[in-house]
Amino acid sequence: MAEKMNLRSPADLIGMQGDRVISFGSGQPDLPPPKEMFEGIDLARDLRYGLIQGEVKLREALAREYPGSSAENFVITNGASEAIDLILRCWNRGEKVLLPRPYYYSYLPLIEMAGLVPVFTDLNEGRIDIEDFKKKVPECKAVMINSPSNPTGRVESIETLKEIEKITQKLGIYVISDEVYKDLIYERENYHIEGNHVITVNSFSKTYCMCGVRVGYLWSVDKSIVEGVCEIKTHTSMNTNLVGQDMALAAMKTPKDYILRQQAIWRERRDFIYDGLKKLGFDLWRPEGAFYVLPKCKNAREFLTVLYRDFQVITYLGEWFGASDRLRLSYALDVKKIEEGLGRIGEAMRKVQVL
Amino acid sequence: MAEKMNLRSPADLIGMQGDRVISFGSGQPDLPPPKEMFEGIDLARDLRYGLIQGEVKLREALAREYPGSSAENFVITNGASEAIDLILRCWNRGEKVLLPRPYYYSYLPLIEMAGLVPVFTDLNEGRIDIEDFKKKVPECKAVMINSPSNPTGRVESIETLKEIEKITQKLGIYVISDEVYKDLIYERENYHIEGNHVITVNSFSKTYCMCGVRVGYLWSVDKSIVEGVCEIKTHTSMNTNLVGQDMALAAMKTPKDYILRQQAIWRERRDFIYDGLKKLGFDLWRPEGAFYVLPKCKNAREFLTVLYRDFQVITYLGEWFGASDRLRLSYALDVKKIEEGLGRIGEAMRKVQVL
Repeated sequence: MAEKMNLRSPADLIGMQGDRVISFGSGQPDLPPPKEMFEGIDLARDLRYGLIQGEVKLREALAREYPGSSAENFVITNGASEAIDLILRCWNRGEKVLLPRPYYYSYLPLIEMAGLVPVFTDLNEGRIDIEDFKKKVPECKAVMINSPSNPTGRVESIETLKEIEKITQKLGIYVISDEVYKDLIYERENYHIEGNHVITVNSFSKTYCMCGVRVGYLWSVDKSIVEGVCEIKTHTSMNTNLVGQDMALAAMKTPKDYILRQQAIWRERRDFIYDGLKKLGFDLWRPEGAFYVLPKCKNAREFLTVLYRDFQVITYLGEWFGASDRLRLSYALDVKKIEEGLGRIGEAMRKVQVL
Repeated sequence: MAEKMNLRSPADLIGMQGDRVISFGSGQPDLPPPKEMFEGIDLARDLRYGLIQGEVKLREALAREYPGSSAENFVITNGASEAIDLILRCWNRGEKVLLPRPYYYSYLPLIEMAGLVPVFTDLNEGRIDIEDFKKKVPECKAVMINSPSNPTGRVESIETLKEIEKITQKLGIYVISDEVYKDLIYERENYHIEGNHVITVNSFSKTYCMCGVRVGYLWSVDKSIVEGVCEIKTHTSMNTNLVGQDMALAAMKTPKDYILRQQAIWRERRDFIYDGLKKLGFDLWRPEGAFYVLPKCKNAREFLTVLYRDFQVITYLGEWFGASDRLRLSYALDVKKIEEGLGRIGEAMRKVQVL
């Protein structure tokens, strides 16, 4: 098991659990879902093919959250993952995509599978280095941004987001803005980048704790993107499952304080793990959203193996996210478990030199 | 509307219906689903990420239907469409795929999107021309077959299937066998092509009337295929929605006579539409499975438009399936509607020369 974890991607760990295991691995909320999600679901109604673009009612409900939008600006997808895959497949092979590094681990394979070429811009203290960004963006077809970020937990400043919005609009470069953690910002409201050239990717998974249901979407006012994605999706998967779309629509009726209550919990956990890792001596960025920390870690591969094999603590290699000298820890688990996990990490540090 | 139908793919028609419309378009069963499908479904249980490969219980249930198989030989996908897309994406660009023509309309775009090159073999009376097949297969990486076929309704003879099995095994060429209509053969049992080089694609959509739920799967004893597909799916869509997988597992508990009763209905409809079109003078193949006819039709584009605009009858262009002088009609509707539709087709024939 430990060897497998060393050799492959997080895919091997998804869904794997054990009683004594403390998992800082999986990137899914552990909080209870809103009860609204289950109201009015009628499985028998959801058996016939639906529109490739997604159910009209769900898209209309989303349009009310995006000022000036209509149902036509959305495509409902099998999670944010499918949205990104389909967008990238719209473009010609050989086009370049600017990719801030560290990145969400699927971005790179998705870019490469679509025949596109990644151009990396290294983050500075976990945030976009706007000078490097400006230098590299003109040669690109598109830019991928992810704020709040998995794996850094950082949120780009509104100033940076507005500057990216302006530069890319001027140059006519697409922005794929992956905002799946937009409701998990502890510091301020999300800033939704807009413009003809912006494609927002989002999901119901993190906000409503429904990762396994696989419902996400993209938003764009660019008709060629919406139509291009629908054309591809017609052949690659057809409509997104209708039960999931119904659950997503029902979940949207959840009162806003559900989200606010969650944010308080995440903030507490963030403080706990950040302070705990600091005390252990780790060098890390303070997360402002999402639920990940990415501490620097020497001998990361060895430490991950020891943590798993000897202490039954799951972590992910920073390497999978383009950050080879780091480990990623998700803090989607309760404070008691985080505490226990930190204790075991402290013990494991006696066996491997990580600082 | 009619113009749109002329210009684009069936995608525009999926989900579109009107009270007075008779649709020979959509390829989905209209029969009631088995009640078993809804038993024991617990939405709250299905919110967390599942295994990329699919739920173990569902794969174990499938393994019992494939002698000598285990859960490891299956990957659960968002319908058969996603299975085919993922398989094709496993292979190197430029490889050739032998494609019997007419073909299911998504095959060609899926092959081309994966950077693969189609090699066509034209069907003879709606069935594979084994001499042409033998001539062209050695240069190919894989072969796509689809028996019973959408759009021809034809079933390959067991003799042909065994010959394909033997030739491709000898040459080490993959067979993608799309058997989504395997339970809708009116004449005999399905023959399941087997071997190390065979990848069977299947779906719960047609057998259990649950198209919108989007659950399909692939079967293969080739580990490189199963692992390759899972690796790609990790990034492109993650687990197939869990509610759908639960519904599929529940549907598998349906007694076999549900399928037999359905077959009787399909046979009656087949006889009705086949005889009716023959009486109108059309030249067509007699379907032996699935629920499509593909009559020859001069001026097909014009006839489709007149049928829709003046008679509110939906049909699909043969052109979308690689058969430019034909129309495809689905008979997934009750005999009374088929009768009414045939009457309108007879009237429309006075306006357009189709024979």
